[in-house]
Amino acid sequence: MFIKKKIFITIDGGEGSGKTTHSKLLKNYLKKKGFKVLLTREPGGNILAEKIRNIILDPELNIVPLSELFLLEAARIQHIKEQICPALEKGEIVVCDRFADSTVAYQGYGRKLNLKLINKLNLIASCGLKPILTLYLDITPSEGLNRAKKSKRDNYGDDGDRIERKSIQFHEDVRKGYLEQAKKYFKRVKIIETEEGSVKETHMLIKDIVDEVLHKCLKEY
Amino acid sequence: MFIKKKIFITIDGGEGSGKTTHSKLLKNYLKKKGFKVLLTREPGGNILAEKIRNIILDPELNIVPLSELFLLEAARIQHIKEQICPALEKGEIVVCDRFADSTVAYQGYGRKLNLKLINKLNLIASCGLKPILTLYLDITPSEGLNRAKKSKRDNYGDDGDRIERKSIQFHEDVRKGYLEQAKKYFKRVKIIETEEGSVKETHMLIKDIVDEVLHKCLKEY
Repeated sequence: MFIKKKIFITIDGGEGSGKTTHSKLLKNYLKKKGFKVLLTREPGGNILAEKIRNIILDPELNIVPLSELFLLEAARIQHIKEQICPALEKGEIVVCDRFADSTVAYQGYGRKLNLKLINKLNLIASCGLKPILTLYLDITPSEGLNRAKKSKRDNYGDDGDRIERKSIQFHEDVRKGYLEQAKKYFKRVKIIETEEGSVKETHMLIKDIVDEVLHKCLKEY
Repeated sequence: MFIKKKIFITIDGGEGSGKTTHSKLLKNYLKKKGFKVLLTREPGGNILAEKIRNIILDPELNIVPLSELFLLEAARIQHIKEQICPALEKGEIVVCDRFADSTVAYQGYGRKLNLKLINKLNLIASCGLKPILTLYLDITPSEGLNRAKKSKRDNYGDDGDRIERKSIQFHEDVRKGYLEQAKKYFKRVKIIETEEGSVKETHMLIKDIVDEVLHKCLKEY
């Protein structure tokens, strides 16, 4: 199978929206189809970026919003240079759990940092790399935070990590940010509602969207 | 004693130029004169920034230059907001071991990152704060690295930390950066040659320069 263009897919959304679950399901689906797939996440994906991730999520740390933004961009560049770009160059499909849209939603709409500044730093840190498709998993913050608490993946205690502990209003603002991004970049960002449907149903929706995008990208499919 | 303006003094220079020694001596001198003084350092000065410092200096880590730059700016903002600005607001003199000139010299001249980008990020991260005086301690890299190795403050082994391990050419470029900054901002940056003179002689020079600056800043002195 010859891939005509680099296939970089991001899965984004608020806390407990199902990003991790659906990233894994998508990876398995693509692998079954015969593709080589790199599944990775932001912030993270390599030793440096995982160290930065631990800092950002640590509920004991006091971090001013602008410092948080710079930390995220530091992790992003290293991740792109060390993992994402090399995988894309080898013709692999890259599926990334969170990317630049998270920064607009969380640091822009959530933390109220200047959106122009965020877009500028995102551009610098991304070295021009843009996802071909972004799956935005939409859920109400109350339900999402509930699900995130139940899963307790990162062991930050009952109150969750430094971001999950923010007020419901913060998470409402983040959601607004995602929805506005989805509206603005409707060709790239597809909204997948994950509040009601089962995991299986949501995965079916994702498969259909991804298949359509792949179809456009591949000579034979 | 009434301080008319905020007194923020930075001490900068290459490896082994005597920044730490002379920052401490200056602090003690100013305290003896009756000032309240905050002595701090970059990157560092608080829990978050010291965590970032450990990452930046770790010789085991692979960090791309742009990621290093973002990490430094993240540490800078937190340091300014948490330590430097509150101390200046209280009328204390702040003496900082390294500041934005280091970023221009190391990441700009050393790592060859775009100087315009560095200046822009320095401006954002500094929130408009500029030193009233910068003491640039000048030493040849060969002698400076020799002295740094002898002091072995940070326990990164005989080869030093991630920055000290760079080639002599890298450190020559860094020195060039400092000297060009000193030329460009000659009113703010004073060059102190630390290769030949004793610690005592250098401290005398620093005292004279600082006294002159204080004289301009204070009503009674």
